[in-house]
Amino acid sequence: MAPPTLATSDLITALRHKAASLRIDSVRATTEAGSGHPTSCCSAADIVATLFFAVMRYDPKNPKDPGNDRFVLSKGHAAPLLYAAWAEAGLFDKAELLKLRTLISDLEGHPTPRLPFVDVATGSLGQGLSAGLGMALNARLDRSNIRTYVLMGDGESVEGSVWEAVEVARHYKLDSLCAIVDVNRLGQSDPTMLQHDMEGYRSRWAGFGWHTLVVDGHDSAALLSAFDEAGRTKGRPTVLLAKTLKGKGISFVEDRPDWHGRPLKKGEEAQRAIEELSRQLVPASATPEVRRPEPVGNGVRAPTPMAPPTYRPTDSIATREAFGAALAALGAANPLIVSLDADVKNSTFTEKFGKQFPDRFFEGFIAEQNMVGAAVGLAACGKIPFAATFACFLTRAYDFIRMAAISKSNIKLMGSHAGVSIGEDGPSQMGLEDLAMMSAQPGVVVLYPSDAICTHRLVEAAAAHRGLVYIRTGRPKSPVLYGNDETFRIGGAKLVRQGPDDQLTIVAAGITLFEALKAYDQLKTVGIAVRVIDLYSIVPIDRATLLASARVTNSRILTVEDHYEHGGIGDAVLSAVGSEGIRVQKLAIREIPHSGKPDELVDHFGISARAIVETARRLV
Amino acid sequence: MAPPTLATSDLITALRHKAASLRIDSVRATTEAGSGHPTSCCSAADIVATLFFAVMRYDPKNPKDPGNDRFVLSKGHAAPLLYAAWAEAGLFDKAELLKLRTLISDLEGHPTPRLPFVDVATGSLGQGLSAGLGMALNARLDRSNIRTYVLMGDGESVEGSVWEAVEVARHYKLDSLCAIVDVNRLGQSDPTMLQHDMEGYRSRWAGFGWHTLVVDGHDSAALLSAFDEAGRTKGRPTVLLAKTLKGKGISFVEDRPDWHGRPLKKGEEAQRAIEELSRQLVPASATPEVRRPEPVGNGVRAPTPMAPPTYRPTDSIATREAFGAALAALGAANPLIVSLDADVKNSTFTEKFGKQFPDRFFEGFIAEQNMVGAAVGLAACGKIPFAATFACFLTRAYDFIRMAAISKSNIKLMGSHAGVSIGEDGPSQMGLEDLAMMSAQPGVVVLYPSDAICTHRLVEAAAAHRGLVYIRTGRPKSPVLYGNDETFRIGGAKLVRQGPDDQLTIVAAGITLFEALKAYDQLKTVGIAVRVIDLYSIVPIDRATLLASARVTNSRILTVEDHYEHGGIGDAVLSAVGSEGIRVQKLAIREIPHSGKPDELVDHFGISARAIVETARRLV
Repeated sequence: MAPPTLATSDLITALRHKAASLRIDSVRATTEAGSGHPTSCCSAADIVATLFFAVMRYDPKNPKDPGNDRFVLSKGHAAPLLYAAWAEAGLFDKAELLKLRTLISDLEGHPTPRLPFVDVATGSLGQGLSAGLGMALNARLDRSNIRTYVLMGDGESVEGSVWEAVEVARHYKLDSLCAIVDVNRLGQSDPTMLQHDMEGYRSRWAGFGWHTLVVDGHDSAALLSAFDEAGRTKGRPTVLLAKTLKGKGISFVEDRPDWHGRPLKKGEEAQRAIEELSRQLVPASATPEVRRPEPVGNGVRAPTPMAPPTYRPTDSIATREAFGAALAALGAANPLIVSLDADVKNSTFTEKFGKQFPDRFFEGFIAEQNMVGAAVGLAACGKIPFAATFACFLTRAYDFIRMAAISKSNIKLMGSHAGVSIGEDGPSQMGLEDLAMMSAQPGVVVLYPSDAICTHRLVEAAAAHRGLVYIRTGRPKSPVLYGNDETFRIGGAKLVRQGPDDQLTIVAAGITLFEALKAYDQLKTVGIAVRVIDLYSIVPIDRATLLASARVTNSRILTVEDHYEHGGIGDAVLSAVGSEGIRVQKLAIREIPHSGKPDELVDHFGISARAIVETARRLV
Repeated sequence: MAPPTLATSDLITALRHKAASLRIDSVRATTEAGSGHPTSCCSAADIVATLFFAVMRYDPKNPKDPGNDRFVLSKGHAAPLLYAAWAEAGLFDKAELLKLRTLISDLEGHPTPRLPFVDVATGSLGQGLSAGLGMALNARLDRSNIRTYVLMGDGESVEGSVWEAVEVARHYKLDSLCAIVDVNRLGQSDPTMLQHDMEGYRSRWAGFGWHTLVVDGHDSAALLSAFDEAGRTKGRPTVLLAKTLKGKGISFVEDRPDWHGRPLKKGEEAQRAIEELSRQLVPASATPEVRRPEPVGNGVRAPTPMAPPTYRPTDSIATREAFGAALAALGAANPLIVSLDADVKNSTFTEKFGKQFPDRFFEGFIAEQNMVGAAVGLAACGKIPFAATFACFLTRAYDFIRMAAISKSNIKLMGSHAGVSIGEDGPSQMGLEDLAMMSAQPGVVVLYPSDAICTHRLVEAAAAHRGLVYIRTGRPKSPVLYGNDETFRIGGAKLVRQGPDDQLTIVAAGITLFEALKAYDQLKTVGIAVRVIDLYSIVPIDRATLLASARVTNSRILTVEDHYEHGGIGDAVLSAVGSEGIRVQKLAIREIPHSGKPDELVDHFGISARAIVETARRLV
């Protein structure tokens, strides 16, 4: 594994030197910033030095080289160490490190992909391994020998998401994936549960089927040997359980519990630390050269246009099923499309894609956090992942979605079984807060098609859009409303019913659109003219159409949605037109619902045609 | 363990009979409903029969008896089996079972606490063990010998939250907790990863330090013996890994992969199944009597009034710190108060409570899902849990919060480090969607105090309110705004600045309230009179005060919040007054923020006094 330029003993000396240098840079940067986690950097410095200067193959001047080995800093609070490593490798000047955590530098408190050498944002613990899993899946799909390294903390080992990734990585036999746990014994507010019980860590990871190596995390020779063994291990991923000391190298800080997230004070304190660390610099006769990546060919064929929808006006099909059909059509057109599911592929219909493209479909089992994290990892490698489950179960992955938004990740999420219209299964299976949760994140596109043709076109639009897109689908079969050549765009809306004397604008999407159309007919018979807007794009929203329509209808809008009352369609409309004095009335689900028949529930909870008619008559 | 009334051999026969009866009832109910999961009931029927009729101590006529052993059906889709067991035990008539999944019955598709014998809603997998952990913590705190049984599915074992609970339960040595995994080999869309690899399950649970027992899940004698061993195991929790067959007892369904969530068809198919199962009924000479609970004394002293705040007008204190102080004061007043944290107790200041009441404080480590789930379990036993972490990390537990809302659980959540005003740590540590996420759930009270006195009073109000309450707090120190005798109520708001000629209503809370007050002063100097509302209660919202104020100020409101633009204060105000044609303008965080100094970020992202003044001048 050692690069050919140095004999092993010289390499070890050189790595020790690099580690001391990374520690000094981490201390300097955090002291200058007046905040940060120098002790969490020091515990991992030997691991990072070994990886960056003896193990990983990458181009230090081109962190975006697709042939680079991947490194994910799951313990994102050790960001200064990562920054120091890239500076040490020569990507940028070390003077930049002193701008840590300022508004003028992208060397933020925790890493984000604003930096070219960061693939995924970290800082919410327990997410890195899932991203690494996605990257390892990508390497397998691309038949490359790129390896993925994920540096984790010991405290974050309690996060359940870690064990989702551990289980799924074993299932996929991802031997190109190597986790390193920096077991430095100390959490933020207390020692960790297991402290330095290395056998405790080993039994957990080994119990899940991983190849485990317990190693002294400050012994570069031992680390080199362990990484070498990891590289030769076939059929299962490897974890290095590295026993370390928090604050290693600074005598008055090392292994001390009161030093989490605390920089060394400017002046004497920092000076003393840097002097100690400087004495650990052991300039070698030669410096190691970074191992270079192999060139990666571009073997992927260019995408072709996706086949258009071919529904008949008499068809009746659930939007979740139309989603599955569209995804399969998209997969045929674009080889970068991949899909993931969480053991509900026969409900979300991602199985249509999976059956056609088994290589590009990844069953994620009942582990939604890891599914989203793996999608983020795949997206970081250039794939366009569609991950699907019931809308309500995406709540399970909300922190991953939040971090994906910070990463500006190019993932597409589909949530099926929206609303009370799923019926008998009851509230635990109903997605009723998904629009609120997705809309809250900046930059996330939120789409909600009502019929099969709109679904088809929005799947196409989602793939073409660079960024996070959420598509909400429903369980019940719906009529086909549009023609196969109808166009839909992100940020658009359709005025599906209108007349010159309309007294009210009704805004709906999904199943409530059909309720609104029924209400339109009933109101017409009693002489009340209304217009109906299909708000298939919730974020961004077609403010112009809403405003123009409202101005025709006496500044009155009625929204109807199969979603809780806060954060859904009604609030999106209010937010768009609220500065203009438009009066908006909402019909939504205002309490925890109940099991029952779909139509019965839609009516009982006040979002049926009957409720719309009653409210409209009251308003106009 | 066997109740004294029956010899062991008779008991085994009786349990077989009970199991067959539960299977028949599960089939009948789901067939009548036309949906549901009879095969998932059949695999677990022997386990449930053994628990309900030979192991657990409870009063079958009083499921709320505080001395009852606890049973949590984590695999909530087996609800019909649970319902059948309680009917079999005599709580209600079996005819009720045929109303399964209808709007007129609380025998819903998945269990909810609408039923007196359900402590926590399940149906989102992987949550039951955390609730059970909370119940076991409660038993220890109460020094009772109540045991807690959690029946899990095998598919849900991939959910990371399970492993959080496994780790934390081991840490707390909860030997009164017994998990049972119904390893029936088949998930929804595929076989499970491990199928019947019982050694695989054993190595995982044992690796985490649990006492493991692999058992034939259809052998009542083996189950009895295993439960007996579990009951005698000290110092660690026990898991029964029960090998079962999905659809057990129905030959043409048993162990078949295409039978998940599929009822037997009315008519011949169901008839054939029931005939087969009926042949398995083996009426014993006697029926087992349910083991009765021991009487539970009420040893808890009555709560006393909480000490009032004693801040000085010159104090400067962060609301998170005032929260910690208030929680400690509350803990002194009310012995039912307990607190949990996720390794940030020195940041959320729950350590103030923890130091004073170590028995009632539970360190949850970095595992937010389990922290919330354990709180729900504690609340189900009558405690009033306050669980705290950074607001952004509560996103990790959103599915647990969603289910807690369905349970109408009496938990209180505190999210600290709200918004960009945390500064240097960067976006991954900033809570910017918490108001959206919490407000979306029906019945959740959302509070956002700005100063220490308001915080103190709202902690008191949260404890007094029966139901889920969220309290948002900030990182920076803030001035004391109110007097110690000021009163605050859930659903209230404070008009902190006002005059007869006000031209604009500014609504703010938290750190933006102080920006609004600065803006008020600056606007005053240029002759623009505005009023300022402290919207400390977001849900419910003081619509009357908002409307009355807006009507004075030319129907104009400006909202300012350290939260993303969707789902926060602005949208809450819009939602409250949006039907009245009030014009609402929002200042909020509209992009992914960056690291930097707190004041710098507040200004850079457009929510400072400067932004308020500029916007106000434009509007009036």
